[in-house]
Amino acid sequence: MTELVNPSLQSGFMELLPQDQVVFNRMKAVVEENFAAFGFWPLDTPVIERSEVLFSKGGGETTKQIYRIEKGESSSDQALRFDLTVPLARYVALHSNELAFPFRRYQIGKVYRGERTQRGRFREFYQCDIDIVGHGSLSLHNDAEIPAVIFNIFRQMGLENVTFHVNNRRLLNGYMAQIGVTDPEPVLRSIDKLQKMGEEKVRAEIEEAGVSQQAIDEIFTFLQPSQSNDETLAMLQSIDCEEGDAFAVGRAELTQVYEEMQAFGIPAKKISIDLSITRGLDYYTGTVFETFLNGYESIGSIASGGRYDDLASNFTKEHLPGIGLSIGLTRLFDQLQAADLLPFADENYIRALVVPMGEQQQNMAIELVGKLRTAKIPSQIYLESGKMKKKFSYADKIGAKYVLLIGEEEQNAGKVAVKELATGEQELVALDQVLEYIK
Amino acid sequence: MTELVNPSLQSGFMELLPQDQVVFNRMKAVVEENFAAFGFWPLDTPVIERSEVLFSKGGGETTKQIYRIEKGESSSDQALRFDLTVPLARYVALHSNELAFPFRRYQIGKVYRGERTQRGRFREFYQCDIDIVGHGSLSLHNDAEIPAVIFNIFRQMGLENVTFHVNNRRLLNGYMAQIGVTDPEPVLRSIDKLQKMGEEKVRAEIEEAGVSQQAIDEIFTFLQPSQSNDETLAMLQSIDCEEGDAFAVGRAELTQVYEEMQAFGIPAKKISIDLSITRGLDYYTGTVFETFLNGYESIGSIASGGRYDDLASNFTKEHLPGIGLSIGLTRLFDQLQAADLLPFADENYIRALVVPMGEQQQNMAIELVGKLRTAKIPSQIYLESGKMKKKFSYADKIGAKYVLLIGEEEQNAGKVAVKELATGEQELVALDQVLEYIK
Repeated sequence: MTELVNPSLQSGFMELLPQDQVVFNRMKAVVEENFAAFGFWPLDTPVIERSEVLFSKGGGETTKQIYRIEKGESSSDQALRFDLTVPLARYVALHSNELAFPFRRYQIGKVYRGERTQRGRFREFYQCDIDIVGHGSLSLHNDAEIPAVIFNIFRQMGLENVTFHVNNRRLLNGYMAQIGVTDPEPVLRSIDKLQKMGEEKVRAEIEEAGVSQQAIDEIFTFLQPSQSNDETLAMLQSIDCEEGDAFAVGRAELTQVYEEMQAFGIPAKKISIDLSITRGLDYYTGTVFETFLNGYESIGSIASGGRYDDLASNFTKEHLPGIGLSIGLTRLFDQLQAADLLPFADENYIRALVVPMGEQQQNMAIELVGKLRTAKIPSQIYLESGKMKKKFSYADKIGAKYVLLIGEEEQNAGKVAVKELATGEQELVALDQVLEYIK
Repeated sequence: MTELVNPSLQSGFMELLPQDQVVFNRMKAVVEENFAAFGFWPLDTPVIERSEVLFSKGGGETTKQIYRIEKGESSSDQALRFDLTVPLARYVALHSNELAFPFRRYQIGKVYRGERTQRGRFREFYQCDIDIVGHGSLSLHNDAEIPAVIFNIFRQMGLENVTFHVNNRRLLNGYMAQIGVTDPEPVLRSIDKLQKMGEEKVRAEIEEAGVSQQAIDEIFTFLQPSQSNDETLAMLQSIDCEEGDAFAVGRAELTQVYEEMQAFGIPAKKISIDLSITRGLDYYTGTVFETFLNGYESIGSIASGGRYDDLASNFTKEHLPGIGLSIGLTRLFDQLQAADLLPFADENYIRALVVPMGEQQQNMAIELVGKLRTAKIPSQIYLESGKMKKKFSYADKIGAKYVLLIGEEEQNAGKVAVKELATGEQELVALDQVLEYIK
């Protein structure tokens, strides 16, 4: 007798029961359908990359979190991807001669980070990414189109109460220069933590970075939210600056993106021009945005992204500016589940369980279930032995919407007894009408 | 200036250009739609498992091929899954109280094997698995239903010319006992290599396993293909045996599965009762099958599976018999591509590219593309600067079916110039008719 191995799940990994998995997959399908509808091409890169590729950006925090591969016959140094952006950069650099630019791709896949485990943090999780990558240049219109994808996705998930917080890094950098902050990066990284750490700690951090008390006061006055987007834009307009400097360019970009987001169908009241959004990473250079569920802001941003100057400078000398966006689906599912906000949760996955009463009805039942399946109606046939009670109990457990009973009488009449489990109502339906009836 | 990192792909990994990726995803979608239509529940387990879980079956060959994880802050011994069956076993053992049995699950995911790279062998590849797992028992009807899923899938891929080779391990074991072979396992493993190695080498291997020359002759007479399934069944019927012994039980099972496969919609002429199919692994105990593309048998089986007695004996004392099937999608795609048999390859992914002629038409164009996208018609709007020639060249490159042009005239008339790229035909269509026109 061999000893049993404990089948428990490792912490930091998500594994769902069937009913929840169906909901997760429905959410993933909504994401994918919209990515496709917006004309993004699917991409599927290996989960394993050469470490050299993954660390090409230097790394820092991520280096510590990486899952390295020990072997696999090959001796090259490999690891699991920690995002989908580095693989995209490698892919575009490798295939730039074969792609049409602007290149629009989506990728939905698992990424790996060996983070300390805690509620809401996963070591393996799905990212759902879209990027539009230009060759040499990419128009600002794309910055407004990207949030529209997200808006459509969340609307279809029944999560219409979202607010898009949009900002512009060029504007922030320009502003910092104006008030005499020469190295804006650490300041923007600190501002990024405002929601998490609060103003006091962020002020302290910025002071440590060598910024004067006066400049810090100016920064926090600047970041102060206005009553409306129009007020914020008016405030920005009121700031004097040279035409063509970073602040002026950023301001013009932010204004245009705000207006075109509306043209792309996002109501103005769902957009917040939010000067405190910085998206920590140095990587972003222009438009940045985050998306919050109204009333559930503590969940954090459910879709974030921004404009970058150069996607693949570590792999190629070609200039590849782009804009991208990412939804962390695993975390989103987990948070929605905790907040009891999961969409699609009350749908029946299995539409019909076909049950022949005896062996004589088996072939008629097999034929019927075949028709349902050809029509892509998820359905099963129950051919295990056992009493009727066991069969109905099975129908309950799998959450079937209908049980389709075929006994001797039904068979002779060419009919099927269709029972809706939720209501208990039963009706005799002609065999050739069943498909229509349960659709 | 930092040195550039080489963006090349590691050998043994598949990464496709966008047009091919679309085809791959269409094939995957057909697989998934049919798995769902047949009432299998989705499952998604972690790619990383504890090594203890993966090696619970002992391992052997696979142990050498495994991708081990070096770290990720946790110090536990982890590795990448090499199939989807071991994770299923762990999952069912862990959740058996929460599942409805028979438990029908599908899983489509990547698995990892550090094989020596060669054409058609991948280190990362998709497996598409279905399994039906019983608790205590599982009726034989399920063995006939499983190939029907495969039949529907390949029919929808336009690959109807398949043959299902079906056999029964119990029958083979019973036969071996009858002719005095006491340890049938190595013999069945040798027979499994018949196609690859040829009769002579297989005979030599079986002889090495200590089987007498006479028994070997008998085995090869037994394996000899007949003219028809009916002849094969008649031959099996002609062999004397005690009622209830393995041979008799296997024979009855094989006969029933053959008949019910036809009830489930597979024409008899697409089924071959093939006594030489053994599916090497000891794991299988009853029905076994492989699926071949007629005329392309050298590709190997494109979908294989079988019946097992106990799914999860390493994780639980519960008795969990089942039947499963696997399609190796990455390899299948690769082989079909090489044989120029890829389905869906001539479809347009992007249906429409909307092109406003000037800035004045931009908002009308944005509105139009929004309508197409809401209707889930993959479409793009072209807002980059540049001449008309550049825009049409982009439409060609992305393989758009239609270009929807809006100039000043069209705008004033509330119309759109719809050009079909393949034919060059152009027609003026009223704005509110466009959706209908290009659907």
